[in-house]
Amino acid sequence: MIIVLKSTATEDNIQHILKRVEQLGLKANISRGVERTVIGLLGPEDKLRAIPLEVFPGVDQVIPVLAPYKLVSREFKKDNSVIKIGKDIQLGGSKIIVMAGPCSIESLDGLRSVAKKIKQAGANVLRGGAFKPRTSPYDFQGLGEDGLKHLAQVGKELGMATISEVMDPRDVGLVGKYVDIFQIGARNMQNFSLLKEIGKTKKPAMLKRGMSATIKEWLMSAEYLLANGNYDVMLCERGIRTFETYTRNTLDINAVAVAKQLSHLPVIVDPSHGTGRWGLVGSAAKAAVAAGCDGLMIEVHENPEEALSDGEQSLVPENFNSLMKDLGKIANAVSRTI
Amino acid sequence: MIIVLKSTATEDNIQHILKRVEQLGLKANISRGVERTVIGLLGPEDKLRAIPLEVFPGVDQVIPVLAPYKLVSREFKKDNSVIKIGKDIQLGGSKIIVMAGPCSIESLDGLRSVAKKIKQAGANVLRGGAFKPRTSPYDFQGLGEDGLKHLAQVGKELGMATISEVMDPRDVGLVGKYVDIFQIGARNMQNFSLLKEIGKTKKPAMLKRGMSATIKEWLMSAEYLLANGNYDVMLCERGIRTFETYTRNTLDINAVAVAKQLSHLPVIVDPSHGTGRWGLVGSAAKAAVAAGCDGLMIEVHENPEEALSDGEQSLVPENFNSLMKDLGKIANAVSRTI
Amino acid sequence: MIIVLKSTATEDNIQHILKRVEQLGLKANISRGVERTVIGLLGPEDKLRAIPLEVFPGVDQVIPVLAPYKLVSREFKKDNSVIKIGKDIQLGGSKIIVMAGPCSIESLDGLRSVAKKIKQAGANVLRGGAFKPRTSPYDFQGLGEDGLKHLAQVGKELGMATISEVMDPRDVGLVGKYVDIFQIGARNMQNFSLLKEIGKTKKPAMLKRGMSATIKEWLMSAEYLLANGNYDVMLCERGIRTFETYTRNTLDINAVAVAKQLSHLPVIVDPSHGTGRWGLVGSAAKAAVAAGCDGLMIEVHENPEEALSDGEQSLVPENFNSLMKDLGKIANAVSRTI
Amino acid sequence: MIIVLKSTATEDNIQHILKRVEQLGLKANISRGVERTVIGLLGPEDKLRAIPLEVFPGVDQVIPVLAPYKLVSREFKKDNSVIKIGKDIQLGGSKIIVMAGPCSIESLDGLRSVAKKIKQAGANVLRGGAFKPRTSPYDFQGLGEDGLKHLAQVGKELGMATISEVMDPRDVGLVGKYVDIFQIGARNMQNFSLLKEIGKTKKPAMLKRGMSATIKEWLMSAEYLLANGNYDVMLCERGIRTFETYTRNTLDINAVAVAKQLSHLPVIVDPSHGTGRWGLVGSAAKAAVAAGCDGLMIEVHENPEEALSDGEQSLVPENFNSLMKDLGKIANAVSRTI
Repeated sequence: MIIVLKSTATEDNIQHILKRVEQLGLKANISRGVERTVIGLLGPEDKLRAIPLEVFPGVDQVIPVLAPYKLVSREFKKDNSVIKIGKDIQLGGSKIIVMAGPCSIESLDGLRSVAKKIKQAGANVLRGGAFKPRTSPYDFQGLGEDGLKHLAQVGKELGMATISEVMDPRDVGLVGKYVDIFQIGARNMQNFSLLKEIGKTKKPAMLKRGMSATIKEWLMSAEYLLANGNYDVMLCERGIRTFETYTRNTLDINAVAVAKQLSHLPVIVDPSHGTGRWGLVGSAAKAAVAAGCDGLMIEVHENPEEALSDGEQSLVPENFNSLMKDLGKIANAVSRTI
Repeated sequence: MIIVLKSTATEDNIQHILKRVEQLGLKANISRGVERTVIGLLGPEDKLRAIPLEVFPGVDQVIPVLAPYKLVSREFKKDNSVIKIGKDIQLGGSKIIVMAGPCSIESLDGLRSVAKKIKQAGANVLRGGAFKPRTSPYDFQGLGEDGLKHLAQVGKELGMATISEVMDPRDVGLVGKYVDIFQIGARNMQNFSLLKEIGKTKKPAMLKRGMSATIKEWLMSAEYLLANGNYDVMLCERGIRTFETYTRNTLDINAVAVAKQLSHLPVIVDPSHGTGRWGLVGSAAKAAVAAGCDGLMIEVHENPEEALSDGEQSLVPENFNSLMKDLGKIANAVSRTI
Repeated sequence: MIIVLKSTATEDNIQHILKRVEQLGLKANISRGVERTVIGLLGPEDKLRAIPLEVFPGVDQVIPVLAPYKLVSREFKKDNSVIKIGKDIQLGGSKIIVMAGPCSIESLDGLRSVAKKIKQAGANVLRGGAFKPRTSPYDFQGLGEDGLKHLAQVGKELGMATISEVMDPRDVGLVGKYVDIFQIGARNMQNFSLLKEIGKTKKPAMLKRGMSATIKEWLMSAEYLLANGNYDVMLCERGIRTFETYTRNTLDINAVAVAKQLSHLPVIVDPSHGTGRWGLVGSAAKAAVAAGCDGLMIEVHENPEEALSDGEQSLVPENFNSLMKDLGKIANAVSRTI
Repeated sequence: MIIVLKSTATEDNIQHILKRVEQLGLKANISRGVERTVIGLLGPEDKLRAIPLEVFPGVDQVIPVLAPYKLVSREFKKDNSVIKIGKDIQLGGSKIIVMAGPCSIESLDGLRSVAKKIKQAGANVLRGGAFKPRTSPYDFQGLGEDGLKHLAQVGKELGMATISEVMDPRDVGLVGKYVDIFQIGARNMQNFSLLKEIGKTKKPAMLKRGMSATIKEWLMSAEYLLANGNYDVMLCERGIRTFETYTRNTLDINAVAVAKQLSHLPVIVDPSHGTGRWGLVGSAAKAAVAAGCDGLMIEVHENPEEALSDGEQSLVPENFNSLMKDLGKIANAVSRTI
């Protein structure tokens, strides 16, 4: 932690800060420049972060030096984390994992039908929403447990792993009974009660980046999961909110490489939410693979005109199939498979 | 709802859309321009919103005409809602209500001491966090129920109403036992499980705007509360996230007047989070009163250097007292009291 | 300047940095922590800013300590700058200056007519655009020099000072012949050629904040003006671009107090562009006065339905007159006049 | 253009609007719904855009239907525009064009040395700044005409086409003498005087997207160039400003596909500014090729530690060479060459 003093700071101000810092058992290093005095503090920043040094008299700025996250950091673990999902899937290695399916689970037959095509196209994990976070209280809220049952059954029939969102800490046990991966949605990235509950399970979890979360905050939310005992965490970039309105979100393609530099956790990209328009999903998915993602999550629906949610960003199976072929070529170009 | 077709749309495309629309019992009005055909749909937009018209062949844009919220709108209720809090307080009338107190409740004695000064300065409601949403899992998470007990006791002793945040749907009953107003934090503005639980109570609730929520989304979240039966809802503007980093958030002063034009609900402003720096709180609070807010929420701490959270944005009681005097003058200038 | 090294930095990396720093005549202060080494550099940061220390091997972050602006800073000049405009106006003192008029100058008679009403309502400076920056090449681009002539004539007739935008460095001389204050538009805040030309004149200039400019960048652009010799600079907050689309821009009310803390220059607020809707202008103008601005710029048009630009955010003279009365009360409440 | 009326709009309001619209020779189509009346206007929107229909009594919203740009649109020209640069280069076809070089031209020898390596690695166009837009007036402002001479000479020696930024409308002639492509920087995207001057030349121009410009505004600025007679325009996505601060800008990868859908103009991507960190340039460049860009602009410097600007985002020639090989594979995967 570095404390930059105001040009008007007095010697009393300095001594007051030093006294407080020493109480914490930290060592200070003072640089007295012509224009400003700067105090460098050595030792664990955690203790310091709890103190609002900004309000101490004479302080201009307080600058943290160390990252606030630990368990998720590359410094903590040098090698890429590889997460085992179901029996066969390894996420975080050379094979790029594709999760696909409808936004919402609408019926058992509908899910089975689209899942077959998705599997044939090469997807590894079946996605489908049973509990849906909807902006409007009047919109379709999902089938709930019935949806989860459909998902588990189709997953079992086709030998696919499954993923579905859990929104409420009270539902963690219920959802966990049916799915292989918990999805934590963008709106819940800082739902700390939910993070703690999922952290206590041992089931893989995919943490979507909040729509206005910095990469640092995203990693801090992942830290909640690891700090509570769950190390099988994957990050998911799904677009951030910016001033641009043509697309539903702005896919932050930079975040893929940044997250992989700062953390050992695998990174998934969701080009469906990242664009919000099915005609842009292909381009964004290709970019994600080229940028180095470890997985993709793509919405597919057999009849988007009838979809109960997110129809405008869903691919039809034919387009998904064709996209998978294109992605295979790009994966090879970056020495990976899909 | 208005559907703008592509210049390449065919007559078949048009008929396909019309057929689907008629199934819903809606009436269509077609304008065939030289460059584009436009279809206007009359009738309840709710039904239409559930259909992804964007994916129908030939469609370029789909433009909603009606606001998606109802119960919270000025069209639904012309007059300002006035919320009764405790025995004496009426929020939403000519008197501006001030909620103040420490960010976190740290001890009974500390809370009592600052509360006395706050009350003397003219505040009406005592705030204090017992469950704290913290970016880091390693930061102070609040005293929990003990904090709520302290808050209730001090509130009773001094005859002040109380407000505290509830983060978890499982805690709604517990928090409701102790406080007069539920606070829903910015990170939980779209925690729909939480909104539904609080909507089912009859206790006043203050809904903070999410840090990247549009005004429309904020009103939609308020709609969740009203649609579930709780009409005693106040909105709270607390700053949004922008590219500017000098301040913690950018207080959206425009949002005060906009929210009051679009909705009948009272609007509170939180200049502490809206600026993130105690030296800016006064200027922002004055602006908020001049802009027409119905209430303020301000963090006050007797010794910000020792605050366990948000010390950098807390006023000391002397400054709060002096600010209240200034606010009184501005309130008078806009024909209100404080 | 503070250099934070990576945990993997070697002694060679450190020596390489020190050598480079010493070549510049700077003194380094090294703190070797358990987890990181930090190098503090004492002396003029300007020299250092020119060196991309981030790319030196072993460097993790480079953190500037001093503000990059000088002449505009409070540290350079403690007292508020007061700018003399025309014969009678002093901007930056206790009197709040109001600049008002149509977005575009459309005709001599039209300008004269609205100017009379504006003056009667209490405005001090007449605004009107002659060169208009328009997003579309097909939109009305302004009357050019004819517009400036109208502005100068009406200003003279009514004894009002005048302000108009200059967009092109080639027009600085021309515009300077007719107006009392140069307006530098938001789109030109970083048009450095223009800033240099205006910096070389001695005529007061109002620098609008760019729509995505940080406060620091805004002050740096002002620094261009002062560094070129023109000290009569006023800053103008006119709203920034955010994700919110209900308003044309988000008025950053925090920026008023921040700019006044960091700089001695007067701060104007433009609630017309800051909201983009005439129904919100009053609320924003009141907030600006309460927040401590030194002046306001407000668009007024006698017949907004016929305005050639920005009609939707223009007040009619009656509303402007009524607003001026309200603003007078708020000015008094903050111990100023208007 | 569609006009949505307020629920309180009167028949008089409607007639007032219709009268005004008919004066313009437009035809109106009225839909009277239960809750709202909607007026659809057929005919050229340009005339309507000049009228602030929002301020007409009874109007709630005005919604444009047609895009405001014409010459740049796909509707105007179905096929991709291919731009001829120098003798050999065709931009916009199957070959992806790479522009590379130092941020600033610092010396003839330095430029020649890096240019040789860049050419050998496969770049087609040599970039280098002679007039530099710098946030600070105290930073290196470029070598001016001397820099342009160096650029032209090295370009000639090596048979490479050249590109350099022009910032001032007065310099268009000068810069045009030396370079093959005008670069219009992000800060000047809405410098309409500059756009008009460059529009009048016949020389290819690359228009960078402003850091807070929507895609629509970017296309409107390109429209200025075409409307003034210059059809050889390429767009350049270089990252936008968002709340994320880890990267200098957020590369909007979606914008590549969007711009190509809406416009026939070629799209370049600048991963150097799009990330601001050399360690992220490779990932972003690969993503750009996969997403369908027609060209790349990459900063390369032999000794970034000594670079006078943007050293932190410059690749060394070895890394650039290695990146070019990787990009070749991805280009092949999307059926293109580089």
